[in-house]
Amino acid sequence: MLLKCRYLSQFSISELSKNAVSISSAIEKCPFMAHARRTLASTSTPLDHSIRNCPRSETDNLVPFNCTDTIDCPFFKQVENLKLNKIIRKRSEHNLVEHHNHNESKLRLNLHRQKRKLHENSDLFDYEKFFNQKIDDKKKDGSYRYFKKVIRHAETFPRIQEYAEENVKDITIWCSNDYLGLGRHPYVQSKVTEAVWKYGAGSGGTRNISGSSPLHYKLEEELARLHQKESALLFTSCYVANDTTLYTLARMLPKCHILSDEGNHASMIQGIRNSGIPKTIFKHNDCEHLESLLQKLPTDDPKIVAFESVHSMDGSICDLHRMCDITHKYGGIAFIDEVHAVGLYGETGAGIGERDSALEKMDIITGTLGKAFGNIGGYIAASSNLIDTVRSFGSGFIFTTSLPPSVLTGSMASIEISRSDEGRELRAKHQLYARIVKERLIRVGFPVMNSPSHIVPVMVGDVKAAGEICDRLLNDHGIYIQSINYPTVAKGEERLRIVPNPHHTMEMIDNLVHGLTDAWTKTGLRLNKMKF
Amino acid sequence: MLLKCRYLSQFSISELSKNAVSISSAIEKCPFMAHARRTLASTSTPLDHSIRNCPRSETDNLVPFNCTDTIDCPFFKQVENLKLNKIIRKRSEHNLVEHHNHNESKLRLNLHRQKRKLHENSDLFDYEKFFNQKIDDKKKDGSYRYFKKVIRHAETFPRIQEYAEENVKDITIWCSNDYLGLGRHPYVQSKVTEAVWKYGAGSGGTRNISGSSPLHYKLEEELARLHQKESALLFTSCYVANDTTLYTLARMLPKCHILSDEGNHASMIQGIRNSGIPKTIFKHNDCEHLESLLQKLPTDDPKIVAFESVHSMDGSICDLHRMCDITHKYGGIAFIDEVHAVGLYGETGAGIGERDSALEKMDIITGTLGKAFGNIGGYIAASSNLIDTVRSFGSGFIFTTSLPPSVLTGSMASIEISRSDEGRELRAKHQLYARIVKERLIRVGFPVMNSPSHIVPVMVGDVKAAGEICDRLLNDHGIYIQSINYPTVAKGEERLRIVPNPHHTMEMIDNLVHGLTDAWTKTGLRLNKMKF
Repeated sequence: MLLKCRYLSQFSISELSKNAVSISSAIEKCPFMAHARRTLASTSTPLDHSIRNCPRSETDNLVPFNCTDTIDCPFFKQVENLKLNKIIRKRSEHNLVEHHNHNESKLRLNLHRQKRKLHENSDLFDYEKFFNQKIDDKKKDGSYRYFKKVIRHAETFPRIQEYAEENVKDITIWCSNDYLGLGRHPYVQSKVTEAVWKYGAGSGGTRNISGSSPLHYKLEEELARLHQKESALLFTSCYVANDTTLYTLARMLPKCHILSDEGNHASMIQGIRNSGIPKTIFKHNDCEHLESLLQKLPTDDPKIVAFESVHSMDGSICDLHRMCDITHKYGGIAFIDEVHAVGLYGETGAGIGERDSALEKMDIITGTLGKAFGNIGGYIAASSNLIDTVRSFGSGFIFTTSLPPSVLTGSMASIEISRSDEGRELRAKHQLYARIVKERLIRVGFPVMNSPSHIVPVMVGDVKAAGEICDRLLNDHGIYIQSINYPTVAKGEERLRIVPNPHHTMEMIDNLVHGLTDAWTKTGLRLNKMKF
Repeated sequence: MLLKCRYLSQFSISELSKNAVSISSAIEKCPFMAHARRTLASTSTPLDHSIRNCPRSETDNLVPFNCTDTIDCPFFKQVENLKLNKIIRKRSEHNLVEHHNHNESKLRLNLHRQKRKLHENSDLFDYEKFFNQKIDDKKKDGSYRYFKKVIRHAETFPRIQEYAEENVKDITIWCSNDYLGLGRHPYVQSKVTEAVWKYGAGSGGTRNISGSSPLHYKLEEELARLHQKESALLFTSCYVANDTTLYTLARMLPKCHILSDEGNHASMIQGIRNSGIPKTIFKHNDCEHLESLLQKLPTDDPKIVAFESVHSMDGSICDLHRMCDITHKYGGIAFIDEVHAVGLYGETGAGIGERDSALEKMDIITGTLGKAFGNIGGYIAASSNLIDTVRSFGSGFIFTTSLPPSVLTGSMASIEISRSDEGRELRAKHQLYARIVKERLIRVGFPVMNSPSHIVPVMVGDVKAAGEICDRLLNDHGIYIQSINYPTVAKGEERLRIVPNPHHTMEMIDNLVHGLTDAWTKTGLRLNKMKF
């Protein structure tokens, strides 16, 4: 029996016999068992006992391997019995994890070699040069993005920390899309951590292959109820939800035509463009223009009319009833992105559809779990048939690992809060603060764009000036607002996008107004003070 | 001053004067303040004090609103001072969250109305009928997917629970892509939960708008080091990483041509197809075929050769050196999906590239944090210029909420384990178990596909039989294997995809072999027992 084990078989029978009780020397020489033995050393189970009871000697239905298979080693089974897994898992973090020190010089050498190789043959396309040029072009036209390195601490938000080179600086954030701060709400945090301990971190599979838990169904039901639809479907993000849903429906519906708001988010544009079907762009939130376009299309062909309820970058809110009515009048279905509205509008936080009592007119609603709901992920809500179709045919849904259980419990907690008095209170404060910030900025003379929503966009219209203002705000006043430039908005429409949070204070609002006034004028821009 | 407040202004001055000390009746009638007062009731700060010290009466730089603004209410500022936010957050879960009871009958009515409406005008396209038909077609051809409802518990994995209608049943999972069980490793779990408490659940923004934390950079550096590349870039999933990277590069590189392995994952196909550039499909892992195709293309035009190192559904492993050498010989760059290899192969778990010492030849490596690393998300690793280009131009990267801090710390913990002795031990067991399962199934006579990797595919070739076997396994033996059908594999190539885990036991392997034999023969399929 012992001879079947590649490691033990190198010892003579007599050698093994002599050591039959402790057999430690043989084990020490076995690369697999040596480690197991070290692990087992901490337990008090004597090793010599198991060798006499090794189940391997009594069974013959295992293949006799002639390779490195320790399965034939009598200790192996014993290790199983002692639940090595459990022992491994219980070892402390420090003993367990040996940080692997990469050989940095080797890495550099490799990278050098890779680069050299690409240049060896000058006839071939020079990828590095090409990519470098693309980046240089972006740097030259001012649209190259330097991401600010920031991290929020749950306790102090909206006070956060900026990492600039070696320095860590406390600043106030005015551009977080965790609109109500629910991502750091203790109830949400507790639900998330509870699930991590209970179910682990990831889901371990696509929805079809072991990744559909009761929690997925429960959250989908909650979302359907929230939006008063028959069904809902989860995606890894609303980018993927928009892209996949529009792409899938557009390609599937015979002779389909898409009417797309000119202000639509990149995720919708991507799905529409990739579908390759005919599309027409209508002016932003312009019902007349939409109707005039719909009139020209055959009545009986399917049409998807896609738009946002609250526009992410100008803060406008569409006339939901009219948009949907017009869409239906000409036989279309309305696809509405409520990403910047869910959790923020309506009695239970279902969005503009709920606020305006237009839920029943909305054929497809898309939303996010990553903004007001403070987690990550996206979803669609619609009729059961439509949802089942996207579920069955949408590549971006099918072929990706499902959301982790903890994201689901966290999102459910957020939705629960959103539906409660606390949610209503947070929304009231959120709207109030947005109004205060808008009014105060207008009073000082800032070109605040006409936004009826919680988004406060201040038009700059110049990429360099917008960047400079934000740098000054950050460096001189400890205030973080992100300047928004191409491709998020059109060139020449660069702006500051300010989003108040119910957790801001009056002092923070004061500092914002004063800081922005200072940064704005120092950048050389003028303020048009209103007369009262 | 009080008259500025819409709510308080409805009371007469004398009425307010009378109540100047307690002013409770006025507050009770103010919808905003009533709630705040209830909240404050638990604190001992007297309300009457603040009204005399209301800062509103001493400042005039606030706009006099004539709307619903409680900012003009003297209590509002006081509420701020008392840090309402903190009070709200400290209230217990039970007091806080009132679950909103939806009016179910109203919901049903709405849904009914929506449906009726769509049918009112019979000239218009009938969407519901169309989608219903699509689903029926899928049900008829057997490719309709009924997701199994399962959940794993961190403690008992790979024993998990199946939810079938009202019953909960303990079963053993043999199809989890949490290949090493790291998603429920206590070290990973502790790092995840630590981050949730410290930083909150979500990231709160896109990478450009407040969503780039030091943790994002740190993980990207770790991933770059792991794969010995200059840089890495995180995505919400590897589906998005593949799709976005291929789409962005293909559209950008002038006269680019893509050569795509016929077995490529849907995410790659999606990116390639959407880019709209010329593409050629080469036979799965066929170097000769690839070379013959490359020979026909202009030498100096850019080419992307895209393939997987370990194939997700047949378990094959490509000849990395030859594939890359051929690609470079003809001036292409090699795009390699290591999704089913990262964490599982090589000294530090960097994948087949590390195992085969081919890292330096791989131009673009894509990987996942959602399988062997047990979390969620995807990434690419490549040269700095290439990474910066995708970062600057990739729509699927730019326009989406960044990964939550907890996913980053969890993934870093997994990578740390992956690099350690424990990682090597887990990989050794993983490979060993895969070999044992393969050998035993072959011995019994199952048509195990020739797979040198940890994936054990058993060919069935019939969608109904594959489904039936899995149902029998689940119902009769408590074993969960997912049958794989179209569109994940071609029609007629339906299979069982078995993935052993180092946390399986010998007993579980025994049960798998016996259960599968029983389910297979009861489904009417034959076994071709090998002669030894």
